[in-house]
Amino acid sequence: MALRAALRNKSTLSGLLSQWSSCSSNGRVCVSPVLFAQRRNNSTSQKIKVDFDQSTGVAVMRFQSPPVNSLSLDFLTELCISVEKLEMDKSCRGVIITSTQPKVFSAGLDILEMYGKSPEHYREFWRAVQEMWLKLYGSNMVTIAAINGSSPAGGCLMSMTCDYRIMADNPRYTIGLNETLLGIVAPPWFKDTMSNTVGHRQTEMALELGLLYNPSEALKIGLVDQLVPEDQVLTTATQMMSKWLAIPDHARHLTKSMMRKPTIDKLTSNREADIQHFVNFISKDSIQKSLGMYMEMLKKRRG
Amino acid sequence: MALRAALRNKSTLSGLLSQWSSCSSNGRVCVSPVLFAQRRNNSTSQKIKVDFDQSTGVAVMRFQSPPVNSLSLDFLTELCISVEKLEMDKSCRGVIITSTQPKVFSAGLDILEMYGKSPEHYREFWRAVQEMWLKLYGSNMVTIAAINGSSPAGGCLMSMTCDYRIMADNPRYTIGLNETLLGIVAPPWFKDTMSNTVGHRQTEMALELGLLYNPSEALKIGLVDQLVPEDQVLTTATQMMSKWLAIPDHARHLTKSMMRKPTIDKLTSNREADIQHFVNFISKDSIQKSLGMYMEMLKKRRG
Amino acid sequence: MALRAALRNKSTLSGLLSQWSSCSSNGRVCVSPVLFAQRRNNSTSQKIKVDFDQSTGVAVMRFQSPPVNSLSLDFLTELCISVEKLEMDKSCRGVIITSTQPKVFSAGLDILEMYGKSPEHYREFWRAVQEMWLKLYGSNMVTIAAINGSSPAGGCLMSMTCDYRIMADNPRYTIGLNETLLGIVAPPWFKDTMSNTVGHRQTEMALELGLLYNPSEALKIGLVDQLVPEDQVLTTATQMMSKWLAIPDHARHLTKSMMRKPTIDKLTSNREADIQHFVNFISKDSIQKSLGMYMEMLKKRRG
Repeated sequence: MALRAALRNKSTLSGLLSQWSSCSSNGRVCVSPVLFAQRRNNSTSQKIKVDFDQSTGVAVMRFQSPPVNSLSLDFLTELCISVEKLEMDKSCRGVIITSTQPKVFSAGLDILEMYGKSPEHYREFWRAVQEMWLKLYGSNMVTIAAINGSSPAGGCLMSMTCDYRIMADNPRYTIGLNETLLGIVAPPWFKDTMSNTVGHRQTEMALELGLLYNPSEALKIGLVDQLVPEDQVLTTATQMMSKWLAIPDHARHLTKSMMRKPTIDKLTSNREADIQHFVNFISKDSIQKSLGMYMEMLKKRRG
Repeated sequence: MALRAALRNKSTLSGLLSQWSSCSSNGRVCVSPVLFAQRRNNSTSQKIKVDFDQSTGVAVMRFQSPPVNSLSLDFLTELCISVEKLEMDKSCRGVIITSTQPKVFSAGLDILEMYGKSPEHYREFWRAVQEMWLKLYGSNMVTIAAINGSSPAGGCLMSMTCDYRIMADNPRYTIGLNETLLGIVAPPWFKDTMSNTVGHRQTEMALELGLLYNPSEALKIGLVDQLVPEDQVLTTATQMMSKWLAIPDHARHLTKSMMRKPTIDKLTSNREADIQHFVNFISKDSIQKSLGMYMEMLKKRRG
Repeated sequence: MALRAALRNKSTLSGLLSQWSSCSSNGRVCVSPVLFAQRRNNSTSQKIKVDFDQSTGVAVMRFQSPPVNSLSLDFLTELCISVEKLEMDKSCRGVIITSTQPKVFSAGLDILEMYGKSPEHYREFWRAVQEMWLKLYGSNMVTIAAINGSSPAGGCLMSMTCDYRIMADNPRYTIGLNETLLGIVAPPWFKDTMSNTVGHRQTEMALELGLLYNPSEALKIGLVDQLVPEDQVLTTATQMMSKWLAIPDHARHLTKSMMRKPTIDKLTSNREADIQHFVNFISKDSIQKSLGMYMEMLKKRRG
């Protein structure tokens, strides 16, 4: 868990990680090979399995953190490191993200990281959430979400950072930013990402009501791009990846950066204030109480 | 009519009203109880009937200004006061706006207020139009438009300020910003509101052509959210309100503010210039002539 | 070809042309009658046939530059002059653009102008591309694209500058900004124009993949407004023009300007930097090589 510790410790590697973002050029991160080697040695990849096929240039990242691939600090740290490794490997041109857990792609941010912890912990956690979004939304690789289960909140956010979204056509699965249902609020960059995907009006209604869409509804409003039977999600993603990789990389990079840079710049220029805002908000008694009640409800459901 | 006089007299209550907007926090207006009490005593509510159900927290505002609920200075003044009263009543969480007039929700801005009057009058009128939009678009309450008749121009604007729009499925009713048909121009904040609702392209075409959509067309482009038979508009609005009120208020407030604040800020930071622009435009001989011809045409139609 | 020479020579007429843009008011260009007369005398109109019907106030511009109406420097220069002439003729209220070439509306920017030429040539060419867009997107006239053939890249851009797009319902025709397929990148103002037409998400996917849509697909995403049988494209355009001309010109001008000015201002305030960026990009060895390979491929296809 040295890598996680690194992200926690702002004065060392974590500080460097933030700097890497700012020294990226066209989204490709520049980093010293020495540091990278150190980090590779430290990687333990428990929560995410990465299979990179050199022959195709395509990696598949499988989320395998039971029971529901919650975005804990550990998970996010491992995700950021994994994406960064692939990003720096010039032979890797595309990434497919998917889940090994039944019925769920990712349940989103881990509530345990936001409940009853210290301000320092909230700060560290939120920085990791930001980092995950910055790495995925700003990736130069082609990113495809193979959404083979429910994908609420942070799971939906991860999906929306991708270039293309394929969802299992199972009416019991849902996707959406449902933060308001928990009494919390999707931050501006979640909102921007959704607005870039489905437009202002759908985003307004979805966020105010905390809407979770079934696959048909999600396809209708453009929240996902394609529905296929559950057992074809990954193969379809692989086929679609070939189509994307037929485009010259440099032209696609520049185009993707042109589309996304203004949204990314809004967060990078406001990152510390965004963290402070989150810490203040989540530390409120009323919000902690809301989250407590929500977790009680979840326990009863399971019990 | 003391309230209307108040809005007219910038040096007294009207000036205060503008200040209230700027001292609002998250859209909820702060106002001294003394002033409010004075205003409550003065309220006569002739053009708008407000029924507030304490048990549900929902108010219904019925426009009852014959023949077509034109947005005259009196109407707008009464509307602003009514919304502000409800906004300040913590027990009121939602408002449904609808019409008691047959076949019409609201015919929009009263042309008589824009024809043959003094610059001072135009100034006062436009400030009231701005105030109506600021109060409705920035409301913390859940606002639902129960559109049980035609809703052109300012009527469409009022509808678009709401969180949700239900329209009577009567093909003879229309809705849209048809200002160009009269030779006048929808101001930037009308445009922004429509663009936030139906997107840039539909707004461009709708505003250039002064398009009025029938209910099916309006649903198709997203100008309204739902169509129901005419006699079910209000009951559907009430049911939909329950769905919106299931969301924790504070999370919904913050989310709504995040979505709308940039658009609202554009007007509040430019309010006087916007008024001056309207006064200059509407005072032009050519525009007055256009409006005169339009009113002649309306007279002939009725005659 | 004096006019083309004029555009080439920045120190004389070309410099004036840029200034004209900046002295326009509400999009209508102000220009000295003397200069205009000189230019009219020089106009030879070989690549574009303009028929202006004084009785209707509508001009039809027919692209007749074999084989595929490529946007060469000559073509663009003639187009700019033609649009400017019509713009300055107060009796001309609307323009329909269409093609006389079979199966193609316009194949877009002429690759020959971007391959193996001097930086000065690239500079001059890009200035003409900008000028075409500024003139068409900022036109006060009603502009309708009668798209009677394929319309890739710059052909699609021209279409998108119009107020309304009618396309021949022939499944073999395509339309889209397919620059990435050639290894080049649509510049920000191409992107803005498309985003204003079909929204952020469709634009992102279309530009990254260099998508070419058939007419049905184009209609579905809103890239064109209407499909008709091929032999009815021009007559439909003429009928639609009547509808647009029923709107008072001054109100429509102001509305169109309100919708488009922010996008236009972005380029006019950044014009020289945009040119420099294009020259640097297109001069790169890798880009020149890409274009060379593309032209070889085209030759083989034809051969």
